[in-house]
Amino acid sequence: MTPSTALAESVIAALEQRGLTLGVAESLTGGAVTSELVGVPGASRVLLGGVVAYATPLKSSLLHVPESLLREHGAVHPEVALAMARGVREATGTAGRGADVGIATTGVAGPDPQDGAPVGRVFVAVVDARAELVRQLDVPSDRPGVRRAAVDAVLELLLNHLSGSSGGQEAASVGARE
Amino acid sequence: MTPSTALAESVIAALEQRGLTLGVAESLTGGAVTSELVGVPGASRVLLGGVVAYATPLKSSLLHVPESLLREHGAVHPEVALAMARGVREATGTAGRGADVGIATTGVAGPDPQDGAPVGRVFVAVVDARAELVRQLDVPSDRPGVRRAAVDAVLELLLNHLSGSSGGQEAASVGARE
Repeated sequence: MTPSTALAESVIAALEQRGLTLGVAESLTGGAVTSELVGVPGASRVLLGGVVAYATPLKSSLLHVPESLLREHGAVHPEVALAMARGVREATGTAGRGADVGIATTGVAGPDPQDGAPVGRVFVAVVDARAELVRQLDVPSDRPGVRRAAVDAVLELLLNHLSGSSGGQEAASVGARE
Repeated sequence: MTPSTALAESVIAALEQRGLTLGVAESLTGGAVTSELVGVPGASRVLLGGVVAYATPLKSSLLHVPESLLREHGAVHPEVALAMARGVREATGTAGRGADVGIATTGVAGPDPQDGAPVGRVFVAVVDARAELVRQLDVPSDRPGVRRAAVDAVLELLLNHLSGSSGGQEAASVGARE
């Protein structure tokens, strides 16, 4: 079992235990976060779905990230990650009710820099009704390595938040806004 | 390199050579198709994005699959796969123009049957302006095996279509409607 798979199992179990639903917004990870979660038997009880907004305009059209934010800062920015996580709660909602939790990834997998951000710069975000968390990574790796690190980071941030351990020191280091 | 990775590289190259854009709609594969494609450097020149409509209602809300179709046949049906592929062309469009090609997966990864369909039953679809192709698989495998087979099948169907080899015998066997 890979670390990602173990994390995904823990995330699904933690969500199910708390009766929470999840929506996933991805850019550089391109579906890998959602795929890890779907790999867990019983995922359908908590995972509603996901949006891979790979082309920048889709971050606005599918996830309601403000176009002004994308124009000003580009797609690799903490506020964009947070807006994606907020937007996917709404996008994956059913019966007029959004997903309880939204998570998001945006960053530069390489081989080339993007929007002024270097290869390896990643932001992951978790948003629910009580918290908005975002964390920056700078991953010294190649394209697959950056993507894998982003998958694990967003699952870890979610798991820590669900476990109630995202306060204090960690909250400060990840730019939590609870 | 896995067979899926080699297929993804061929698909990205074939799309780029033809100047075509792609949108991906996934159910049981849960982002794995999109993730394989994003793994290819340069994918951003052709891949616009994807929608993982894992919960059945999202197939209507995000991909415009008719609710009547889902009520009548459930989510694991060739017409649902085709409707998802059509819907994702529109959903991933930018600047008022849909994606040139849409592909889709729906099926039962298990461990339990769904909507009257057995574990391993999968439909994959490819839709563009000139063709609508759908193919049924029955995969005698476990959850990871069924999902991997679905990823490879939809990439193969797309690659064959782009290569112009989906006519004749194969078109008949996959239920092509060109």
